[in-house]
Order: sequence, then C-alpha cells, then structure tokens
Amino acid sequence: MSLKLYYAPGACSFVPHALLELAGAPFEAVLVKLHKGEQRSPEYLALNPRGQVPVLVDGDAVITQIVAIVLHLDQRLPEAGLLPPAGLARTRVIETLAWMNNTVHPTFTHVFMPQKFTDQPEAQAAIKAHATAQYRQLLGEIEAMVAKKTAPWLTGANPGVLDAYALTFLRWGGFAGIDPTGYPHTWALAQAFAAVPAVARAVEREKLQLNVYKPA
Amino acid sequence: MSLKLYYAPGACSFVPHALLELAGAPFEAVLVKLHKGEQRSPEYLALNPRGQVPVLVDGDAVITQIVAIVLHLDQRLPEAGLLPPAGLARTRVIETLAWMNNTVHPTFTHVFMPQKFTDQPEAQAAIKAHATAQYRQLLGEIEAMVAKKTAPWLTGANPGVLDAYALTFLRWGGFAGIDPTGYPHTWALAQAFAAVPAVARAVEREKLQLNVYKPA
Repeated sequence: MSLKLYYAPGACSFVPHALLELAGAPFEAVLVKLHKGEQRSPEYLALNPRGQVPVLVDGDAVITQIVAIVLHLDQRLPEAGLLPPAGLARTRVIETLAWMNNTVHPTFTHVFMPQKFTDQPEAQAAIKAHATAQYRQLLGEIEAMVAKKTAPWLTGANPGVLDAYALTFLRWGGFAGIDPTGYPHTWALAQAFAAVPAVARAVEREKLQLNVYKPA
Repeated sequence: MSLKLYYAPGACSFVPHALLELAGAPFEAVLVKLHKGEQRSPEYLALNPRGQVPVLVDGDAVITQIVAIVLHLDQRLPEAGLLPPAGLARTRVIETLAWMNNTVHPTFTHVFMPQKFTDQPEAQAAIKAHATAQYRQLLGEIEAMVAKKTAPWLTGANPGVLDAYALTFLRWGGFAGIDPTGYPHTWALAQAFAAVPAVARAVEREKLQLNVYKPA
C-alpha cells in the first residue's frame, strides 16, 4: 500500500512530513501551493472538502487531522517507534499533542488569520493583538516543558511529533514578531531536530528557514 | 488503581464521564462548580494549572485533554471496546474526535466566552455573531455524518465518544439560540445515547436537560 502526503511548506503539515521521513517509509510528497489557492481547487476539495493540509492518503483511504494522521502512522509503522508504545508515557505524548493541536495551533490562527473570526477590521486587529500576547505565553509553556524534560527529546527517547510541532510553533512566532532565540531551550531543540538527517530531508524539501523573525 | 474524574455538569467532561459509565469501571466522580469558580481554586490549580475540566486521576497520574483521556481509558480498559481496536475504523473515530475537539468545541467557546479572545465589547459581539453562524454549519456537518452513518452509533457498533461529543454540542447549541430539533438525526442520536442505561447514570448525575433551547 502506498503512502502519499499533501503538504504546504512551513504549514503544520511539517509534523507528519517529518514523521514520515523519521519512519523511513517510502512515501510521495505532494506540494500544495496555499499562496496560489490550490487548497481550494476542485481537485483538492474532492480530496479534502475542508481545504486544509495535511492530508495523508494510505492506499484508498484519505485521512485528515494531524492527531489522526500521527496515530495512524504509528499504527501503520509500529517498528518506527514514532510514539511510546503504551502506558503513561504514551498518554503524556498524546496529552501534549492534543493541547498543541487544540490550543497553541488555533491561537496562532487568530494571529495569522483573524479574518476567520470576524469580517470587521477593527475587531480583527483586537483579536490579533490579544492572540499575539497569548501566543507568547504558550511558547513560554513549551519552553518550560523543554527546559524540564528528562529525555533527549520532547517526545521522549526518539525525536518525534512534539519536537516537530514545537519547531513549527517557534518558527511561526517569527511571523508574529516573536524572536525565537528568546526561547533558548526550544530554539536549541528546534535546531537539533532540524539537523537530524531524516528531518533535514523534510526541511530541505520544504525549503524551511528556521528563523524568520525580523526585528522591527 | 483507582480512577477519579473531575467534571462539571454539561461541560465537555460529559464525554469521559459517559465513557467511564459505559466501560463499567468503578470510578469516583468529583463535581467542580464552575459557576462558583472552583476551577480557579488553589486546590484545583494544583491539580490542573490550566484550570479546566475534565481531569482524570489514574492512581498517581493526573491526565488532562479529552483526546488523551479517551485514548488512555481505551488503553486502560481494553475489554470495554470504547474505540475500534485497530485499523482504519479506529483512525476514522480519532479523526472525527480530533475535528470535534479542535474545531467544533473551540467555535462554541467563541460563542459562549468571546471575552477569551479580546477585551473590547464590540469586537466580542462581532466574534460571537460570526462564531454562532459557523457553529450552525458545524452542527450541519455533524448532522450529515449522523444521517449517512452505516453503524448503529456515530462511534460504530457501540455507543461511545463521538456520540457523547455530538450530544454535548447539540445541547450547547440550545444556549446559542439553536433549536436541536432542527438537526433531527443528531437529535434522535442524542436522545438514544442519553437513554442507554450506563449513559443515563451520567446524565442523572449531571442533572442534564437535553434540550435547553428557548425560542426568542
């Protein structure tokens, strides 16, 4: 059965992209150009009616949602050790993944696309300002997690999903005027993660620059 | 090892509450009075610094996040069959659970607590109005899922997590001025789910009224 990942450079699809490279499974990476609106093309909407990346195609099955894709890959490629296999260690990774996915990620959406929440320009500006302050706090929570981790990676013994998401959030912060080097533990983690040879292939394919922050 | 669930009546903690009853495992249900601010008490914040329900305590482990609690219970109580055990059926349940958790649930937060997204009253009103329209659409997506399901329950052969979340969202809609009977498939599912004897114990403990809609 073939695996195919639809991704957009720098989007949250980097998370499953990095995991597929880490798993060492053959897969096809399909670029979706968000700036050209390809996610709203009839072909893409036929694949994912919500018009979002990532999408994983596994044989005939089309799978959306990062949490579901990650758990599907873990089930599909058990020898890759993408998540701790069982017990409280597994629950802890899923707990932080869920929080990143339902709290940190949507907070950045309020910073980056406030027009999703109201048509009124003044209200959009208020939402963006409020969310930017919240996003700094959330990056601070991640920084505290990275600072106190006892394993080599945020995910545990192996680099994985939480490291990929943390890199993505810190990188996104640069677009919101947040200097990644202000979170030194997370910044070091992101650099180390990007340098893992398997992950470096995903970084290279997406042409990712880790630090996109520009001082005002 | 003992199981303890911190819940608030009618909150999203109904999801693990119903699952614990369905699993038939002994557990202690601990009421958290949100209207009295108990979730911000020093005792509760020591348990969950984010001040949210639900919290599952399993022996010495404190577990937050619905997605993590559900997968933890499934791992902890495998004989209960809370989720399909493997394969694409399992991925599909997790995919819809993740969407409910990161999209439907936060959209209702914008309706119910717009003050979480800005301090400005006019912007709050704009956010609430926009989110209410979106929430109707999302309930429509759930209605379509329920209408076309081929198994007895949204979760599959057994009543479970997606049915509990769907009931919760439809009920919440009543507080947003949305008539649940306008989504007849979901309304029938919610009533049937609430009538399952195990679920009825959770409904009774929370003193839940399924239809809280009041015509304007």
